[in-house]
Amino acid sequence: MSDNTNLVPYKTLLSFSKNVFLAMGCPEKDAELASNVLLSADLRGVDSHGVARLIGYVRLWEAGRINPTPKVKIVHETPSTATVDGDAGLGLVVAPQAMQIAIDKAEKVGTGWVSVKNSNHYGIAGYHAMMALEHDMIGISMTNASPLVSPTFSTERLLGTNPIAMAIPAGEEPPFVADFATTTAANGKLEILQRKEEDAPVGWVQDKEGVSTTNAAALKSGGALLPLGSDRVRSSHKGYCLGSMVDILSSVLSGAGYGPWAPPFVSFLPLPEDPVGEGLGHFFGAMRVDGFRPKSEFKSHMDNWIRRFKNADTVEGQERVLIPGDPEREIQHERLTLGIPVLSPVIKDLEEVGSKFKLTL
Amino acid sequence: MSDNTNLVPYKTLLSFSKNVFLAMGCPEKDAELASNVLLSADLRGVDSHGVARLIGYVRLWEAGRINPTPKVKIVHETPSTATVDGDAGLGLVVAPQAMQIAIDKAEKVGTGWVSVKNSNHYGIAGYHAMMALEHDMIGISMTNASPLVSPTFSTERLLGTNPIAMAIPAGEEPPFVADFATTTAANGKLEILQRKEEDAPVGWVQDKEGVSTTNAAALKSGGALLPLGSDRVRSSHKGYCLGSMVDILSSVLSGAGYGPWAPPFVSFLPLPEDPVGEGLGHFFGAMRVDGFRPKSEFKSHMDNWIRRFKNADTVEGQERVLIPGDPEREIQHERLTLGIPVLSPVIKDLEEVGSKFKLTL
Repeated sequence: MSDNTNLVPYKTLLSFSKNVFLAMGCPEKDAELASNVLLSADLRGVDSHGVARLIGYVRLWEAGRINPTPKVKIVHETPSTATVDGDAGLGLVVAPQAMQIAIDKAEKVGTGWVSVKNSNHYGIAGYHAMMALEHDMIGISMTNASPLVSPTFSTERLLGTNPIAMAIPAGEEPPFVADFATTTAANGKLEILQRKEEDAPVGWVQDKEGVSTTNAAALKSGGALLPLGSDRVRSSHKGYCLGSMVDILSSVLSGAGYGPWAPPFVSFLPLPEDPVGEGLGHFFGAMRVDGFRPKSEFKSHMDNWIRRFKNADTVEGQERVLIPGDPEREIQHERLTLGIPVLSPVIKDLEEVGSKFKLTL
Repeated sequence: MSDNTNLVPYKTLLSFSKNVFLAMGCPEKDAELASNVLLSADLRGVDSHGVARLIGYVRLWEAGRINPTPKVKIVHETPSTATVDGDAGLGLVVAPQAMQIAIDKAEKVGTGWVSVKNSNHYGIAGYHAMMALEHDMIGISMTNASPLVSPTFSTERLLGTNPIAMAIPAGEEPPFVADFATTTAANGKLEILQRKEEDAPVGWVQDKEGVSTTNAAALKSGGALLPLGSDRVRSSHKGYCLGSMVDILSSVLSGAGYGPWAPPFVSFLPLPEDPVGEGLGHFFGAMRVDGFRPKSEFKSHMDNWIRRFKNADTVEGQERVLIPGDPEREIQHERLTLGIPVLSPVIKDLEEVGSKFKLTL
């Protein structure tokens, strides 16, 4: 661990975050939920999406862009679908409610699909997808995000890092949990390189002319993140397709701000002057595995799938083939025991938030 | 066009293929459907999945692995889900029937989701997804395939090129149609390089030790295709996640052969000795756009989305940003007029098939 990292117990960060959300005016139940969702990122090792973002939510609230007491409601539905209006609430609170609606619909008709408008950043995609697991359902979660990504052949930033998560239950094995941005690299990884003044690998970013660069700070001078695939020869158009699919399902389907009209997470950037929808959008799905075959059969074959891949022959120097969700589960185990490593600049931000609300970390 | 390419009218190839399927014993309606699905690949420029594969289907039929008169049936269902047994029929026939079931369910409850077992190669994923468009639905199609792809860190071939297609209706603009393998490059592209004795770009394949190579023939000596992303630094684990998701939804959910147990397309390779399921698997989805918001609203915002992306600023040397589905539609227009370019070796295969059934091309 580097010198500027501090180990803070999970419970300390959880209760601090909850108190911040309470101070913003969230009801007890929402503050509890929001802090659980936020901290699930830190626990799973997705440091960019956890407490590091708490100050961002506070600033959005100060700018009047977050409603601490939203009335989340269904505005359109069929037996297996719904569109939810998040009433400008915290994405951390709106998203689990929308996912619950998907699960409830799946209980009744086999699957449930919910598109959400008028929300904002919802933490890690995987949290919401994983809600399906205890119901023996496959969970799906995606969201659009602040525009930072250029489509193949473009110099403009028209898409967010637009993640996709899918959680699939198994039997004796832990579940399969995929959760990934549809870009080559997450923005958080670039920020780390910038702080260290190191170059980025080829294929992560382009400069403002749309030329691939290893300058990790290119985004700050008009550059963009590259879609998964990196360049046309290595199929960046597929990453562009994936990011677009997430954008359309999350925001064109629901009536949120899509593409370059997605509202920025940072409060210092203005909202689009010509909005095409309300807030940020998400999309959730839940599918009962016994909508397709008996649970026990499905689970025993998932166990077999996982074991076959886990035990596959490896490239020299690699100990094992990873099953999606394994690394995050291992980090979670470690961090619950040892504490969560928080960078000094993040500690400073948390202290600033604390002083705003007369709370100590 | 190169010297060894022959332009053949679409209708000639269509009726030849139909006659071949009839000669295999398919009913009139199935032969018509199968030839339409097969030729849609040639029309859309996916040459590897069209008539070039006709001889492959014939050989599978000769090997007793294709049932020309399948009784496709639902073996498990809820209002929004079904599992379909393809009865070892042509994937080209089983898949559109399964997609129709998804569409019928969507008519009733908003969405329909169908997992298919006991099928085989289904042509291009996009054909089936696009069936949803005329119903003002979003269509989704995916399939597992012969194992040729190694998970990140592995030397074994455990996944197919496992494509994903999504078709989304628009209003005045043509629809958004994404259709792509979850690998960096399709196997067909490698085969072209092999014939020309050219190197492959970095990031497409690895050798049998799992080391990235530019040898386009590496697959023939124990190598493997690489998941979308190319390598760990450029997030090949995301391509591995995507390929795995397709494999699980198509085959673990339905009861087909998953991962390395997926049956090979080529008849000279043996079937797995320890099968874990029946045949190849597919997964289809259909979602009514008016399950989420009024059709006219959705379509006008899709038009706006498409126009914004189509008119985005481009990188120097690129004329425009492509909307998924545009290149294929342009090729289709051209090929319907000028004919379909068929390579000489493929013509030879078709003549071989013709002589088998006393048919002339």
